[in-house]
Amino acid sequence: MFEKILIANRGEIALRIHRACREMGIHTVAVHSTADADAMHVRLADESVCIGPPSSKDSYLNMPAILSAATITGADAIHPGVGFLSENADFANMVAEHGLAFIGPDPQHLRVMGDKVAAKATMKEVGVPVVPGSEGAIETDDEAWRVAEEIGYPVLIKAAAGGGGRGMKVAHGRDEMHDALRLARNEARNAFGHDAVYLEKYLGHPRHIEVQILADKHGNVVHLGERDCSLQRRHQKLLEEAPSPALNAEQRAWIGNRAAEAARKMGYHSAGTLEFLYEDGEFFFIEMNTRLQVEHPVTEAITGVDIVREQIRIAAGMPLGMSQDDVHIQGHAVECRINAENPRTFAPSPGVVRDYHAPGGLDVRVDSGLYGGYRIPPYYDSLVAKLIVRGQTRNECLMRLRRALEEFVIEGVDTTIPLHQQLIGEPDFINGNYNIHWLQRYVDALSAE
Amino acid sequence: MFEKILIANRGEIALRIHRACREMGIHTVAVHSTADADAMHVRLADESVCIGPPSSKDSYLNMPAILSAATITGADAIHPGVGFLSENADFANMVAEHGLAFIGPDPQHLRVMGDKVAAKATMKEVGVPVVPGSEGAIETDDEAWRVAEEIGYPVLIKAAAGGGGRGMKVAHGRDEMHDALRLARNEARNAFGHDAVYLEKYLGHPRHIEVQILADKHGNVVHLGERDCSLQRRHQKLLEEAPSPALNAEQRAWIGNRAAEAARKMGYHSAGTLEFLYEDGEFFFIEMNTRLQVEHPVTEAITGVDIVREQIRIAAGMPLGMSQDDVHIQGHAVECRINAENPRTFAPSPGVVRDYHAPGGLDVRVDSGLYGGYRIPPYYDSLVAKLIVRGQTRNECLMRLRRALEEFVIEGVDTTIPLHQQLIGEPDFINGNYNIHWLQRYVDALSAE
Repeated sequence: MFEKILIANRGEIALRIHRACREMGIHTVAVHSTADADAMHVRLADESVCIGPPSSKDSYLNMPAILSAATITGADAIHPGVGFLSENADFANMVAEHGLAFIGPDPQHLRVMGDKVAAKATMKEVGVPVVPGSEGAIETDDEAWRVAEEIGYPVLIKAAAGGGGRGMKVAHGRDEMHDALRLARNEARNAFGHDAVYLEKYLGHPRHIEVQILADKHGNVVHLGERDCSLQRRHQKLLEEAPSPALNAEQRAWIGNRAAEAARKMGYHSAGTLEFLYEDGEFFFIEMNTRLQVEHPVTEAITGVDIVREQIRIAAGMPLGMSQDDVHIQGHAVECRINAENPRTFAPSPGVVRDYHAPGGLDVRVDSGLYGGYRIPPYYDSLVAKLIVRGQTRNECLMRLRRALEEFVIEGVDTTIPLHQQLIGEPDFINGNYNIHWLQRYVDALSAE
Repeated sequence: MFEKILIANRGEIALRIHRACREMGIHTVAVHSTADADAMHVRLADESVCIGPPSSKDSYLNMPAILSAATITGADAIHPGVGFLSENADFANMVAEHGLAFIGPDPQHLRVMGDKVAAKATMKEVGVPVVPGSEGAIETDDEAWRVAEEIGYPVLIKAAAGGGGRGMKVAHGRDEMHDALRLARNEARNAFGHDAVYLEKYLGHPRHIEVQILADKHGNVVHLGERDCSLQRRHQKLLEEAPSPALNAEQRAWIGNRAAEAARKMGYHSAGTLEFLYEDGEFFFIEMNTRLQVEHPVTEAITGVDIVREQIRIAAGMPLGMSQDDVHIQGHAVECRINAENPRTFAPSPGVVRDYHAPGGLDVRVDSGLYGGYRIPPYYDSLVAKLIVRGQTRNECLMRLRRALEEFVIEGVDTTIPLHQQLIGEPDFINGNYNIHWLQRYVDALSAE
């Protein structure tokens, strides 16, 4: 087992990883920008190294600085966390070249899954259902028309290098194709530096369902069930739950086994998540996240599995501590992402947290680096806390969530807590009756009030 | 189901009950002394009523004031919590006479189990093993000698009305009996107002093992396994764990079934705990607590059952939501009682909590009414927080506990956190090798350093 792990991240996820290490008896090295010197995980880590000025590109994305910090402190592994360098194949390679372990999958899997066209082709090969669409990039209007006739309108044009909704356009018929292609290419070029686009069937009311898998280096793979992450605003998840209220046990097992089988066939190891759109009983693969996900705690809450611990064990070459028969899904869990943002305009709200008090009690978990007097820096993602609540049933979970949100005190900055409080009282949410477009419409309607 | 519950208690347990009510959609009424107006559960409750000055006998033990508060606010049930009036049969009767539900067992069971001699006789009748000893009170030295010869020296002389170790003496041989009886009687008279004493076999190295049961008004009874509460100082529990490291699965099932069967035969309903001494493979009943216990969360952590919710459901006449086959013990849990006390001298340390930060993350639960700026009043029990940690294994649980204690910040007052940190590093504790005398010796040795 590793003796010392460098955590190449910040915020609540860095604290999450620190906690897992601590509980395994592993020493931790925090790296931080000058803006994060007072962060909780920096205070708690055994050692810390300042790696640069506030700007992410000079600190949390600064590979040489991070590798130097690892070398100086004698770390034997690096956990990249979420975002930043976590899916960067070059970084993973460099970590290995420095004789350190990268706590994540092989660089080749980071690379393949980072290219959406290649990812889709790989999944098709290993028997995972994908959204019908073009085989690779589309060059001409003619080609686009031909594919669109085959799969039926409306169709979605997506950037091959895409993410976050950029370079994405819908064409509802033949006449809209030319302009949609042009706009998508322009956006893609501006956002990602190259303009390759591809075509997919457009789904009108899909849910976002993702399957968590764990795979070791010895061919053992399990899935830990699914999460429903349909509540998104501008492709940012706000609230996640598990199990999905839309699936039955048979569908759960079916898609779970498909995902696990795909990981096995790919020779994948580490934690990973296969994301699907789900509509009218059908699943369509959209992408695979080859890293830990922000919403992993909802799965931990209903399975009892510590996903970060398993990631670390797998990276150290240890076999999975469980087989599929050992995985039991019990109860229901919801995660609320608490962002330091205005709950109506979503404008970031950095600043000093004057008062902080997290809810407690049965089946309530809080992952947050906040504390009273902490200054939330303006430079990074606005996620500052995750509230994860479990119940024996979905209804129990939602009642508990309501009371936990009531108890949560974060003063001095705006947060999304009031939005969560409002949202969980909505009949559509209570009935589990929502899709990936629901939240956007909901918040649009709120701000129009 | 009840619409409004009055919580006749204070501190973390009042907050615990408030949370359960809130999660069931039940309105809450907090009652409080003038010293507790700023308490967290008072702030969170739907309504609150001041019932008297700081002194417990004028507030939390003031039955007319509490009953008036219930009547004025239109509560339909009273939850008495832990301590105070929770085992007072007269109060339970008065609650019923006012047409309200008492969230606890029938007054007759409070009464019988409140008399240690009667409790022991009852348990013997329903087939629960008891400590060998006198059948009821001992009048003369001759009678005491006869019983002691039968059961063997050393013997323990205990007050029939006893509790907290008062009126308790050991006689190691015939020659010590007369003085021990006299001293025990004197202490009993001073502490409890009457001097009836009885005799029991003295156990040299027992563990304190208690079984949690739940029984409804329809004859359904389950046990939720045991807790090991051997770590006591002056009969005050400091750290509890479940399952007990001393029992195997067979012993666990045996004593659990015995306890459940006893409750069924007694016609008991509500939550209850049968306490046993356990030595060399044998269990000996010592008392039954006919109420919620402070340490109930360790059982909740390993069974997933919300004990307070079940208490409320049972009092409302609903059937238990589970059968014995539904109860699965998973993993291991420890509770640390965090008292506002000097960790060496145990002198109470009331005052203002300058800074408060509870640990978070996976499988960490905190039950506490503390917050930054809160003033801990000097009038009550010094328990201010409970830290409950769960792990898949005992070792995982202890590692997690260590890191959670590291993160716990309570500034401005002394607490037992440093003692817990030291204690959980002791080889005897790590190996589960302790009995009811261990902690007293350990803290005595520390203070002698």
